Amino acid sequence: MGRWDPDAGGRLQHSAMTLYLERGYEAVTTAEIAEHAGLKKRTYFRHFADKREVLFAGAEAFQSFVVDAVVHAGTDRAPMDVVITALADSGTLLEPYRDYTRARRDLIASSTDLQERDLIKLASLTAAVAEALREREVEPLQATLTAQAGVAAFSTAYDLWADDDGTSDFGRLVHQTLDNLRRAIGAA
Amino acid sequence: MGRWDPDAGGRLQHSAMTLYLERGYEAVTTAEIAEHAGLKKRTYFRHFADKREVLFAGAEAFQSFVVDAVVHAGTDRAPMDVVITALADSGTLLEPYRDYTRARRDLIASSTDLQERDLIKLASLTAAVAEALREREVEPLQATLTAQAGVAAFSTAYDLWADDDGTSDFGRLVHQTLDNLRRAIGAA
Repeated sequence: MGRWDPDAGGRLQHSAMTLYLERGYEAVTTAEIAEHAGLKKRTYFRHFADKREVLFAGAEAFQSFVVDAVVHAGTDRAPMDVVITALADSGTLLEPYRDYTRARRDLIASSTDLQERDLIKLASLTAAVAEALREREVEPLQATLTAQAGVAAFSTAYDLWADDDGTSDFGRLVHQTLDNLRRAIGAA
Repeated sequence: MGRWDPDAGGRLQHSAMTLYLERGYEAVTTAEIAEHAGLKKRTYFRHFADKREVLFAGAEAFQSFVVDAVVHAGTDRAPMDVVITALADSGTLLEPYRDYTRARRDLIASSTDLQERDLIKLASLTAAVAEALREREVEPLQATLTAQAGVAAFSTAYDLWADDDGTSDFGRLVHQTLDNLRRAIGAA
């Protein structure tokens, strides 16, 4: 293999998922992931900061997609509508990984370390969405609460999507979950 | 000092806050916290699992308080009302630590490790509240969404409470924040 490897990151992700699922998250080392991918350990750390980060490789691009959609939405639209549409449309980024979704979700649930990393990615997404709303001149508290409600609906929809038979539409689940949230808190 | 020390835990918490605020979270070791409290390092680890946990000493008792309130609420009350009242009433547990609240919140914000631990405590609270609702025969998805909305309102109210001039009532802030959440997500 040459020194230039355009898909080293993708191979490391695939190897990490394979080994984590085979042996459990705790039992696998980054050296073993690199070896499985036919790469050196130092290559692993050029791509991912630690043993957890390999499972969250798309998080930054995902957050940028959602924030861009919020920033560029028509100025006449209500904040909650802007946020939930951005999160629903993010399904186009998740769809190619649908086959991995349930296994990845269960893997995260198996480890407190992974749950913490997952939660901080969602918190980062919430903060970024709230900031994007404030740039649209939404009042700060409303921006925070709208972002929290949107990300809560998104993450619950993601769980439903992971558990279903593979036929449901992600965007539709996100919108339905927000409607259910409205009913649950008595806003509808 | 005798071997039996009824308030070793409290002294360790106080020493941890003092040293973390003086020098920053990263720069302080558990041995230094123990020494500051006049205790052995192994005593630290009898009380707290790691360097982070000392800042979350009351989390378990807090969660039990909220879950008990949900479990024992009158059967005629709506799920959202039960949850928000339980979280509002939890102010009685937070009030004695009011002077620490802002410093602790800013300390947590200074460290990704501490943020992760804080988020997993909130996720644990959310899951426990949802479970308590399901025991009241609330439909599972409604239970999850009601718990998420309640804890979102709670954590935003906690931030407002930490930032205010010390005169606001915690319970009232929690109820007001839920009302603002209702307006933010539409239809109220």
